[in-house]
Amino acid sequence: MSLVVQKFGGSSVASVERIKNVARRVKAEKDNGNRVVVVVSAMGDTTDEILNLAKQIGPLLSEREIDMLLATGEQQSAALLALTLNNMGCKAVSLTGWQAGIYTDTLHTKARISKIHPDRIWKELREGNVVVVAGFQGMTGDGDITTLGRGGSDTTAVALAAVLKADICDIYTDVDGVYTADPRVVPNAKKLSWISYDEMLELASLGAVVMQPRAVEFAKLHGVRVQVRSSFNGGNGTTIMEGREMENGRIVTGVAHDLNVAKLALFDVPDVPGMAKTIFKALAQQGINVDMIIQSATRDERNDISFTITRDDLARALPVVEKVAGEIGANGFTYGEDVAKVSIVGAGMQSNPGVAASMFEALADEGINIQMISTSEIKVSCIIDADSVEKAVNALHAKFRLHEIEE
Amino acid sequence: MSLVVQKFGGSSVASVERIKNVARRVKAEKDNGNRVVVVVSAMGDTTDEILNLAKQIGPLLSEREIDMLLATGEQQSAALLALTLNNMGCKAVSLTGWQAGIYTDTLHTKARISKIHPDRIWKELREGNVVVVAGFQGMTGDGDITTLGRGGSDTTAVALAAVLKADICDIYTDVDGVYTADPRVVPNAKKLSWISYDEMLELASLGAVVMQPRAVEFAKLHGVRVQVRSSFNGGNGTTIMEGREMENGRIVTGVAHDLNVAKLALFDVPDVPGMAKTIFKALAQQGINVDMIIQSATRDERNDISFTITRDDLARALPVVEKVAGEIGANGFTYGEDVAKVSIVGAGMQSNPGVAASMFEALADEGINIQMISTSEIKVSCIIDADSVEKAVNALHAKFRLHEIEE
Repeated sequence: MSLVVQKFGGSSVASVERIKNVARRVKAEKDNGNRVVVVVSAMGDTTDEILNLAKQIGPLLSEREIDMLLATGEQQSAALLALTLNNMGCKAVSLTGWQAGIYTDTLHTKARISKIHPDRIWKELREGNVVVVAGFQGMTGDGDITTLGRGGSDTTAVALAAVLKADICDIYTDVDGVYTADPRVVPNAKKLSWISYDEMLELASLGAVVMQPRAVEFAKLHGVRVQVRSSFNGGNGTTIMEGREMENGRIVTGVAHDLNVAKLALFDVPDVPGMAKTIFKALAQQGINVDMIIQSATRDERNDISFTITRDDLARALPVVEKVAGEIGANGFTYGEDVAKVSIVGAGMQSNPGVAASMFEALADEGINIQMISTSEIKVSCIIDADSVEKAVNALHAKFRLHEIEE
Repeated sequence: MSLVVQKFGGSSVASVERIKNVARRVKAEKDNGNRVVVVVSAMGDTTDEILNLAKQIGPLLSEREIDMLLATGEQQSAALLALTLNNMGCKAVSLTGWQAGIYTDTLHTKARISKIHPDRIWKELREGNVVVVAGFQGMTGDGDITTLGRGGSDTTAVALAAVLKADICDIYTDVDGVYTADPRVVPNAKKLSWISYDEMLELASLGAVVMQPRAVEFAKLHGVRVQVRSSFNGGNGTTIMEGREMENGRIVTGVAHDLNVAKLALFDVPDVPGMAKTIFKALAQQGINVDMIIQSATRDERNDISFTITRDDLARALPVVEKVAGEIGANGFTYGEDVAKVSIVGAGMQSNPGVAASMFEALADEGINIQMISTSEIKVSCIIDADSVEKAVNALHAKFRLHEIEE
């Protein structure tokens, strides 16, 4: 008898019909003799609808109250799923975050799980119940309701799988796994049967958000084996696990691309200590995340400093950069929105020199100019013209023969 | 500094605009230097909408899960009101039933409050917060969410007023008080400035449901002074208090009428012990409430037994009565739906003989035939033709000079 944690996202429970579909899947797992804990998100766009209603009030000044409001969405879908399971003759009970013993810190709307007391879950499992837990939420030590931020239901599922020592944590979603590239861009992209935590994290941060990065980090930290799979068909998905468990020849696992990128550059920044700090602290104070940063070699005791941010943040970043440029005595700045990021990811590149060179060659062969480069141990990213992104992704997919990867 | 409990029903918080209206009223009370606890129902038809969604699943087999589902409605309206108050510069915090320390028994969907631990409420009041409590809900000793049944928010408000020893409990509703008769039927009906708990209970059970009878009972038991008033205008409403506090000359306080009545009669029931028990136990087992019961004088060792139920229950009652009539050897039965109940209520009639006679006289003067009569210490009810109800109510209102009652 295995213990299985299953998580179903908002689109999987968006209607009563879909909830019935989910219930059939849960019941099948139970009928196979397994103990089942299910984590659900709010139905479809419920969370946005509730927030839009609240925004009619005016500025929302209390994050504690926003959590109080939003947590109802998951409580509803959990109860509806439990009712549906009962209706199919499958014993089930729903629990809110606090009833499931999920404690968090006090950072309302983006709380982090601090500990889990799963006594109530164990009691219900012992009594033969499927336990349906409202995802995305928990409780502070003072008894206030918190939410974990967007995608928090993934984290709930992984955290419960960790503390319950579940055999598998299945994340059901509207895609059927992790692909070597976006199938809408690369028609012969292949679904991966497995991927390492680190590769998944890189892919997620590069724009291929199949699962929340925080949840992947949590899974890595606690060694939870996670499977991303489709809630609409029955096939196997992609299992996320420790890289060392997979002795294999894969060098590059996937190609990611991201169009939500803007590029900025400050010219002739004085070559004295503290310049980079001043620039990026000012951006951080506005909550603007900086992705790639490049400082060119010194020339005449002045540097050019380029960096990228998400395109969404550009409007807020420009006045900050303009002000900072004046303060530090830079000789002006430019920005561009017509750029994109293409990346290759693969744990195997650590022990295989020349991967980056192959990437640059593939892009050069297509006549694509590289504007910025950034590397980590298991990825190489290039900023290129936005117009070339489709050509680039296909060229890289072909170069590393990802269409030949075994599913 | 007074402590005020205010309760706002579903229609008072049915939209963001209305919630803003409620918030202005709450803030005014706070700005007057009072400590304020607010109890809210779910927005408008939210509870029905949630239930209708759930009913798409099929039969709802778990009342625990229904409570889990329904309790979200009040949690949302409480959070929205707290957010609105914050927005107006009025410190406020919302609490669910369990956060407010409201414990109940385990009778899901119709739980009763067993105890209240108001520590959290006191803490928030000390910190200068308006405390907005989600009405209609509580928690069992095992940490399960319960609801108190329809109108439960009234009970929440009265119970909190009792345990907090509030100076007043204001029940805001869509009518502006308790009237001597339904103003839609009697154009010169007067709003009462006060009424006793007992009179209010009689009126409520007679079809004039301004406030839930359970909440009135609770208020009587704990001596909570309750004011029923309009959430849409600023005038005083009707205060419900101990009858003995009101030395006065009022004999009859109001006239009530109820069209949701059906009459049944069994003929020639054998005059042996156990007949009434058999009939009414069978009905009780089907959850059918019997209101008036009349057994005529014995004739030839057989009785006629007549009784009334709500018209809504008639279809379910008929097969039960048919079966029982056969079992006990009655000589058939009849039923009628074209009847109504008119009642006069007044604590003063206890010490004023002849009130019932005046009632019968008023009805006779209008040529209205009385089919059944039932009395209690402070009311007299008559079953009459449904067609005559408007004439009867106006005649009784005039007979007891209720249009002259001082507001």
